[in-house]
Amino acid sequence: MTNFPKALKRYLPILTWSRDYNRDAFISDAVAAVIVTIMLIPQSLAYALLAGLPAEMGLYASILPLVAYAVFGTSRALAVGPVAVVSLMTAAAIGNLGLTDAASVALAAGTLAFMSGALLTVMGVMRLGFLANFLSHPVIAGFITASGLLIATSQLKHIFGVETHGHTLPQILGSLLSHLGDVSLPTLVIGVSTTAFLFWVRKGLKPMLLGFGLKPRLADLGAKAGPVAAVAVTTLAVWGLGLQNWGVKIVGAVPQGLPPLTMPSFSPSLWSDLFVSAVLISVIGFVESVSVAQTLAAKKRQRIEPDQELIGLGTSNIAAAVTGGYPVTGGFARSVVNFDAGAETPAAGAFTAIGILLAALLLTPLLYFLPKATLAATIIVAVLSLVDFSLLKRAWGYSKVDFAAVAATILLTLGFGVEIGVSAGVLISIALHLYATSRPHVAEVGLVPNSQHFRNIHRHAVETLPHVVTLRVDESLYFANARFLEDYVSARVVCDEPLSDVILMFSAVNEVDLSALESLEALNLKLKDMGIRLHLSEVKGPVMDRLKRSHFLADLTGHVYLSQYDAWIALKG
Amino acid sequence: MTNFPKALKRYLPILTWSRDYNRDAFISDAVAAVIVTIMLIPQSLAYALLAGLPAEMGLYASILPLVAYAVFGTSRALAVGPVAVVSLMTAAAIGNLGLTDAASVALAAGTLAFMSGALLTVMGVMRLGFLANFLSHPVIAGFITASGLLIATSQLKHIFGVETHGHTLPQILGSLLSHLGDVSLPTLVIGVSTTAFLFWVRKGLKPMLLGFGLKPRLADLGAKAGPVAAVAVTTLAVWGLGLQNWGVKIVGAVPQGLPPLTMPSFSPSLWSDLFVSAVLISVIGFVESVSVAQTLAAKKRQRIEPDQELIGLGTSNIAAAVTGGYPVTGGFARSVVNFDAGAETPAAGAFTAIGILLAALLLTPLLYFLPKATLAATIIVAVLSLVDFSLLKRAWGYSKVDFAAVAATILLTLGFGVEIGVSAGVLISIALHLYATSRPHVAEVGLVPNSQHFRNIHRHAVETLPHVVTLRVDESLYFANARFLEDYVSARVVCDEPLSDVILMFSAVNEVDLSALESLEALNLKLKDMGIRLHLSEVKGPVMDRLKRSHFLADLTGHVYLSQYDAWIALKG
Repeated sequence: MTNFPKALKRYLPILTWSRDYNRDAFISDAVAAVIVTIMLIPQSLAYALLAGLPAEMGLYASILPLVAYAVFGTSRALAVGPVAVVSLMTAAAIGNLGLTDAASVALAAGTLAFMSGALLTVMGVMRLGFLANFLSHPVIAGFITASGLLIATSQLKHIFGVETHGHTLPQILGSLLSHLGDVSLPTLVIGVSTTAFLFWVRKGLKPMLLGFGLKPRLADLGAKAGPVAAVAVTTLAVWGLGLQNWGVKIVGAVPQGLPPLTMPSFSPSLWSDLFVSAVLISVIGFVESVSVAQTLAAKKRQRIEPDQELIGLGTSNIAAAVTGGYPVTGGFARSVVNFDAGAETPAAGAFTAIGILLAALLLTPLLYFLPKATLAATIIVAVLSLVDFSLLKRAWGYSKVDFAAVAATILLTLGFGVEIGVSAGVLISIALHLYATSRPHVAEVGLVPNSQHFRNIHRHAVETLPHVVTLRVDESLYFANARFLEDYVSARVVCDEPLSDVILMFSAVNEVDLSALESLEALNLKLKDMGIRLHLSEVKGPVMDRLKRSHFLADLTGHVYLSQYDAWIALKG
Repeated sequence: MTNFPKALKRYLPILTWSRDYNRDAFISDAVAAVIVTIMLIPQSLAYALLAGLPAEMGLYASILPLVAYAVFGTSRALAVGPVAVVSLMTAAAIGNLGLTDAASVALAAGTLAFMSGALLTVMGVMRLGFLANFLSHPVIAGFITASGLLIATSQLKHIFGVETHGHTLPQILGSLLSHLGDVSLPTLVIGVSTTAFLFWVRKGLKPMLLGFGLKPRLADLGAKAGPVAAVAVTTLAVWGLGLQNWGVKIVGAVPQGLPPLTMPSFSPSLWSDLFVSAVLISVIGFVESVSVAQTLAAKKRQRIEPDQELIGLGTSNIAAAVTGGYPVTGGFARSVVNFDAGAETPAAGAFTAIGILLAALLLTPLLYFLPKATLAATIIVAVLSLVDFSLLKRAWGYSKVDFAAVAATILLTLGFGVEIGVSAGVLISIALHLYATSRPHVAEVGLVPNSQHFRNIHRHAVETLPHVVTLRVDESLYFANARFLEDYVSARVVCDEPLSDVILMFSAVNEVDLSALESLEALNLKLKDMGIRLHLSEVKGPVMDRLKRSHFLADLTGHVYLSQYDAWIALKG
């Protein structure tokens, strides 16, 4: 197992780590897998309900997809499976279809996983991972925060035991308020007490267990088992007290056994209805997953390959599609737990899959009386850690453009749902960037005394030459600002004392496209008519290479100087 | 009439020139108006047919809109009215609606003019003219060329006397070929001979008239009257020989009299169906109009105000909507003729309106036997001057990115129609620009001997310091390339001799957004862990202002140097 071709290794990262796999790594991975399994059982059920799917689909999405990621993924700590935000997006995507029967909903969810998996895999093979860079950090952070709020709000119906509908904050809150009269008291008791218990488990249990003299690792495990304990206690309570007859909604029959083999639909109309959703789920899932994978890898000085991650997540989703699951990705919280619990290799994920498989085979009959309110409490406690408004403050202090992007993403996600929210966030951040580059900063510069360095005449005490104006153009010149520069220079040269020379300092000009070239040619002619020469300085190599391929340099009335100081010396003399 | 408030003058440019209006200007304007009227009568009829509308709508669109532009427009030479490309776009927009009766089609055309007029006016008041800059020159030029080809091809049906349908080149050519058996010989004779005659008028008539000893101005007028002569001769031929009974399609009854007062529809469903088309027609019409207006203004050292042009064109379109017209804009060819004929002020346009009004009142009965083939020939000869493939060659030589934008625009316009073509062209050019900025050029630089100037070590013979790497980042740092720089620097520092210092030379960095700031913070920490200090040099004022509002400068392991030479001296010592 030593000399695989490089291409095979690229596509099968398992070959990189499996040959060195040893007993120590196995023990570390197995311990991590036990902890993650305990955490994942209630989460997988809960997120399936959040996605509007039967609980068992959450279990199925936590078996084969994890094995696929162990084979194809590059992160050693990423815990793949159902996650909150992607489950919410799945609910929104399927909700748009207006399906009524459970079989069609399950088929649509599997199809969505298949489409998303195929998209991710193709993007990985085509090395299109860079596209995710166009989701700016403010947009992602705003989107995750708003999604967390939406998810928590959407779960209130289970806590109150009422029906709500809608995928936006006003819809959910409105329908919640209009149904408050139908509230089920036993459900409310279970929901509120479980939520309170789980918050306490997060904050208070571990210190208490440590105070009882437990070893840190065991105390940690105890804290992780909190949700399982809540599941067990509330299930027993419903069963013992017959609360299902008092209005407490329960999970009901969950099929026992292996995940079914399923086929996605290949109906063109379903594919076209789900296409935009599949793109958004793929991109959001990838970005969320890659950012946690990169953070964790950096802590151990490891690297992940974003393009191979696309393939890892893609095959996971295809695996989900063919085994009764729904869209999956790498989850933030579970990955951190997996990492902290000592997972050494992706094998930890495969061992987790075995744990969930055993649960599917053995534990499902015990879930019959599990109240949905308990699962809702699990979700609420998990997602509120996603909600973080601190970026709003940070962005406000640093840059109003970034603030606008994050605020718009949050408001649009809450007000119009996840799909419109994240799409608008991306488009707004790109539009704001383009707008800024279409009106570039232009500084008039002079020589810093006793140096060869040139700076803005309005910020520094600098020397200037009479009859010469030097303008430093602080942007690449392309179609969106080509005319701006022409107008700017034209306006600058007329409202001043007579000029003989204009120097454009190109130190910040990284590109001159054909539209900008034509503007520069027009500017050169216009200045020539006014008896003013046009010079360039500090033109970068790649820009100069291109200008040489045009007539511009031949027609230029002035010179191109290597440095601005050379231009200064030449025009001073 | 001397002291109007400034705001009033901004919105009513007529106040600027009307107070100096005198007899000389009147004569110049009147002569230009006569020439433009002669040119506009057949063109307005022809473009209305191109738009799929009754011929008289072309006349109506050439009366009040011209008066509105004379009041609100800033260009002194722009000839507003029906133009080829906007007529084609009108045909495509209305064709999408699937209307069958003539009244609905006319109502839709008027509504389109109203929507476009309202959009343009609102954009003008909000000073959104800069948005047109995002239509790059390659995209516009490619779109106009492809539209010219589409228009010429679409007119072949009138030359051959057959029926065709479709709005893309394959559709038009395909249906033309499948109907070739139905060709009407008398129509073909009229169409081909008129086309040949008009081409000869363009190229050969003026020199011939000059050869006969005519004064240049009269020779010019003779050449301009060519299409009118063709209209007269072919109309007489049809009337005299009764060719309408031999399959020659004629214009038929054109109502005589003043333009009707019309109201646009305010049906929400029609508005939503036409919205995208109205946006595209507005933007294309504006860009075409402004570019010819700017070219002509520059020749006389005049200026136009793009934002006021939006209002001028907007009110023209609203005027068209309420007087039985359809979308109008400033036409390239007629504006050049207007300019060359000596038009001094926008009053020339108002005088042209009077000429067309007289035609509508007096000449329409004479148009009954006018063959459509003659109008088609007028269009073909007019639009083939729009077709110009030279930009393809120029772009290929200068920049493959610009070439890709122009080639894609041409192919998509021909293959999928005007709306998809121009939208895709804009999106492709923006996407290519963003892609380029997401993978910036980074140059490792050293000191040019005997200077304080730093250049790429691979292009120039420069000095470097051991243990110090200086990277000049040739792009603003924003979300799309934030991670790229982090990865680039990380890769650079590991695969070399041990380093003590990395300097990022920020001379070309015009922006550092929040995502990039986070990447810089991560890079600083990563380098700190490796025992490498991170410095910045030549940070521009606006970027430094912003960095000062973050913790980055406090956490930075190195210094920020005013110039790269200062950094060199400090790290050398």
